[in-house]
Amino acid sequence: MNWKASLSRALPLLGAAGLLALSAGTLVADDGYHSKYADRFEPLPAIAPIPANNSLTKEKIELGKMLFFEPRISASGVISCATCHNPALGWTDRIPRATGHNGQVGDRNTPTVLNSGFFTAQFWDGREDDLEGQALGPIEADIEMAMSLDDAIARLKEFDQYKEAFAAAYGGEGEEQITPENIAFALASFQRTLNTPNSPFDRYLRGDLNALTEKEKRGMAAFADNGCAACHSGPALTDSSFHAIQVPGSTDLGRYEVTGDEGDKYRFKTPTLRNVAVTYPYFNNGGVESLEEATQIMAREMLGREFDDQTIKDVVAFLHTLTGEMPNITIPALP
Amino acid sequence: MNWKASLSRALPLLGAAGLLALSAGTLVADDGYHSKYADRFEPLPAIAPIPANNSLTKEKIELGKMLFFEPRISASGVISCATCHNPALGWTDRIPRATGHNGQVGDRNTPTVLNSGFFTAQFWDGREDDLEGQALGPIEADIEMAMSLDDAIARLKEFDQYKEAFAAAYGGEGEEQITPENIAFALASFQRTLNTPNSPFDRYLRGDLNALTEKEKRGMAAFADNGCAACHSGPALTDSSFHAIQVPGSTDLGRYEVTGDEGDKYRFKTPTLRNVAVTYPYFNNGGVESLEEATQIMAREMLGREFDDQTIKDVVAFLHTLTGEMPNITIPALP
Repeated sequence: MNWKASLSRALPLLGAAGLLALSAGTLVADDGYHSKYADRFEPLPAIAPIPANNSLTKEKIELGKMLFFEPRISASGVISCATCHNPALGWTDRIPRATGHNGQVGDRNTPTVLNSGFFTAQFWDGREDDLEGQALGPIEADIEMAMSLDDAIARLKEFDQYKEAFAAAYGGEGEEQITPENIAFALASFQRTLNTPNSPFDRYLRGDLNALTEKEKRGMAAFADNGCAACHSGPALTDSSFHAIQVPGSTDLGRYEVTGDEGDKYRFKTPTLRNVAVTYPYFNNGGVESLEEATQIMAREMLGREFDDQTIKDVVAFLHTLTGEMPNITIPALP
Repeated sequence: MNWKASLSRALPLLGAAGLLALSAGTLVADDGYHSKYADRFEPLPAIAPIPANNSLTKEKIELGKMLFFEPRISASGVISCATCHNPALGWTDRIPRATGHNGQVGDRNTPTVLNSGFFTAQFWDGREDDLEGQALGPIEADIEMAMSLDDAIARLKEFDQYKEAFAAAYGGEGEEQITPENIAFALASFQRTLNTPNSPFDRYLRGDLNALTEKEKRGMAAFADNGCAACHSGPALTDSSFHAIQVPGSTDLGRYEVTGDEGDKYRFKTPTLRNVAVTYPYFNNGGVESLEEATQIMAREMLGREFDDQTIKDVVAFLHTLTGEMPNITIPALP
């Protein structure tokens, strides 16, 4: 097929996009933004990176899903991972601070588990590196599920269906395989599948120039040009690094509580911006409900500048384009 | 088609069933049980009876589903109907007694909402007649969701998506339609769809003689012949009536708390036996975990007889055939 034929086929697809350029023999359409900004971002893959020591298998994912929805590994018997990481609420809870065992309220906002397999630091303070390390924390935390791992394991061992599922995932006798490590590996495997690809932004990055409106594109440009993308980088729009920020109402010392280094005071992990429109409220203390206000605070605190109203509106419109396709999870039938 | 042709077609379907009888011109196969017992039971319809004042519409069902999974109509913001009526756990909680706001433990076992539209009395003590009457109780109960209806309604009114959903379900301006009655009507509509047809028992009643094993059929016969079916009657295997029973560890006065009549002391509504194998633990206080033990207690308490081991095993095998197809519910995306 010659390029004129390609052109005549491609033209109807270009829609509002005006400019056409011929680059290395390929037709590339541009809208005045794509050529300048697309390379500064990364589309989100469907599956998060898989660690060498925890191969991703169907059996582990299925087991991890059961465990994720299992409230009987909490002291009350009614709190599961899915209580705070609620699939109906963007896999978070949409309240300021996590509320767990006996109604106790924690100090920090529940992060969504969506796309968390793309992070190289877990929790607001990065006290764990990966999902395997993160998985057991909330089960044992006194103000979350408040269950000792011994008790959780004893509870799981009562059910043949769990014995079978652990055997299917890890081989051997099921009962022996019900270990803290294997619980963590299964939960991590399941969470590694909870990603939200194909957002309007991803479709745009991949070349669908009509996937974003002009306003959203202006927001993307403002986001990149003002330096937001310095920390909100990579496929999940986080560098998994720690930056000092003090948001209204927070006295939390953040990363300092892990390292004890003065320089880590008030540092928190850059949160992902993927699905940020459906994972309010914002910041480590969940103190801000509106994306407009959160954007203004970030501009002041992190960039030392004041965004005008139009820029705020544009950036917020862009942030809405980061909402991807939610995982299509059927509720498991637990034993 | 003549009956010989019908016969030659039907024969391969009859499987293990031996006897054939010609009744009113139709071929009827029998297995020694069906002709005797099938008429004493009713298969479960796919949809529960719809009251004249609450027509069942797609819009109400969708809205009811949102509300059912909505934790922000609880005081803590993390307890929804689905917390205790957990779809992963047979739409109940599988713990002895309901655990709600701030970890408070109630006096009674959470009944499954599955097939609850077939009941003509709701709650263990029948203090409401129908799902519309039942729906708001747990939202307001101090030890369950602990939310005033005014506060719940104010919360819902914050979301455009709810305004739209109420308008779609009830017409008019969405905000005005967010009323206690309309919340109850939507929740009732959704619950009316949560039924479990096509259990092995239903398939058997409808003529699939291979849907039950010989052991299960013996259990069905024992269940009917010993009088269990006197109260566990109708499509949901409950008469929605009240019968005196005192189970181990319970001091609950039951129906008496509603009526104040001496004769109602220790009376509780006959629970449905649909899905009984997956809705343990049993009785008003959730005091019994095993179906074998529950069956023995029922034989002693209600029938004044002792079942031998084989009868217990047969009846329990039969009770397992009452587990139907679980509703295929996708988790809603809440605003």
